[in-house]
Amino acid sequence: MKIEKVHITKSAQKLIQDVPALKRAYAEITKSIKSVTWPAGSRKFTINNSEKNINGVVPLKESCYVMLEKNYSWFREKPLKVLKEEKEKGGPIDVYKEFADNSPLALKRVGLEFETGNISSAHRSLNKLLLGQNRKELDLSVIMMPVKALAYYLTDRVTNYEELEPYFENVKRAAFIFIGFDADAYDPSAPIIPKGPDGMSTRSIKKWKDL
Amino acid sequence: MKIEKVHITKSAQKLIQDVPALKRAYAEITKSIKSVTWPAGSRKFTINNSEKNINGVVPLKESCYVMLEKNYSWFREKPLKVLKEEKEKGGPIDVYKEFADNSPLALKRVGLEFETGNISSAHRSLNKLLLGQNRKELDLSVIMMPVKALAYYLTDRVTNYEELEPYFENVKRAAFIFIGFDADAYDPSAPIIPKGPDGMSTRSIKKWKDL
Repeated sequence: MKIEKVHITKSAQKLIQDVPALKRAYAEITKSIKSVTWPAGSRKFTINNSEKNINGVVPLKESCYVMLEKNYSWFREKPLKVLKEEKEKGGPIDVYKEFADNSPLALKRVGLEFETGNISSAHRSLNKLLLGQNRKELDLSVIMMPVKALAYYLTDRVTNYEELEPYFENVKRAAFIFIGFDADAYDPSAPIIPKGPDGMSTRSIKKWKDL
Repeated sequence: MKIEKVHITKSAQKLIQDVPALKRAYAEITKSIKSVTWPAGSRKFTINNSEKNINGVVPLKESCYVMLEKNYSWFREKPLKVLKEEKEKGGPIDVYKEFADNSPLALKRVGLEFETGNISSAHRSLNKLLLGQNRKELDLSVIMMPVKALAYYLTDRVTNYEELEPYFENVKRAAFIFIGFDADAYDPSAPIIPKGPDGMSTRSIKKWKDL
């Protein structure tokens, strides 16, 4: 996969420049999305573009998350305290990691969501990641989406980067990175990506556990 | 219908206190939701509570909007310039009115959305209304939702006030009013509210037209 579009808010830019741990976090995320290939065993990502909405999208997310978990020790399903304990409602953050840079005071927490739902679901992710920052539970938030050109061949109504883009400015004072990824190649004879969560082998995920 | 819960951000509170036109706007909105009755011809709102998710919710929205349009001259489907002209994507604001207080300089613009979709759709409304304020196209935003107790008997997964409540603080610096309405009475023998947009008589809506 390749990264086609990126939007980094000013404070996220400053964090990546000034904090080595967060520069590393961003590198881990970009490497993970770039590592997603198709078909299995290929060195690049080729999408079947024979028909609109023909491919699934969940297997892409799973591939990216597996890489984050296995190679870089990220955790899955991190609940925000504000939602779980205080408000007692709302789901966890998809993927999460704490970076310490050898100092507990320097603890930095990054939350990531890879959007495979529709546009309104992406708005919910955005608001959840913002709430986490407002409540000092997250330092940096990342939202990953296919660009519009790729989304055309993925599950119907999956959020695309361009569709959420008008709202990036709503969080301009927070630390957000928006990543729009695209296939390396389009080929009508490429295998079709299966739809649904069973596209890749089932496995146990590394869930976050509060100490 | 009765108003059961209200959350007014500080700047919305200040606007209602200081600007007569916005005090009037708020009064028009509360009168309109309170005016919704069921069954037709009744003086109060009685919900059928014989079964979970048994009633529709769109007819309630329509009743409220009709009142705003006919009695108080609000407009439907006001596009934000930032979405329509600049970003060229994204739908309009449900209901909109401009209040002038006899001075063009005092022009105040109010946008309202009555949520009949699921929670993520409510997040999109919230972000759209916030974008409108950030871009100085709206001065006050209002989101109307059933409270959880009532939502239990409405269309499955319709947003309820308590569900969006954890996110109210995301817009605490903007001018927002969140209204949670409830039925006046619960009665298992009350008529069931039809689902879908055809619950009430069809009619032409008064759409906003840019000059």
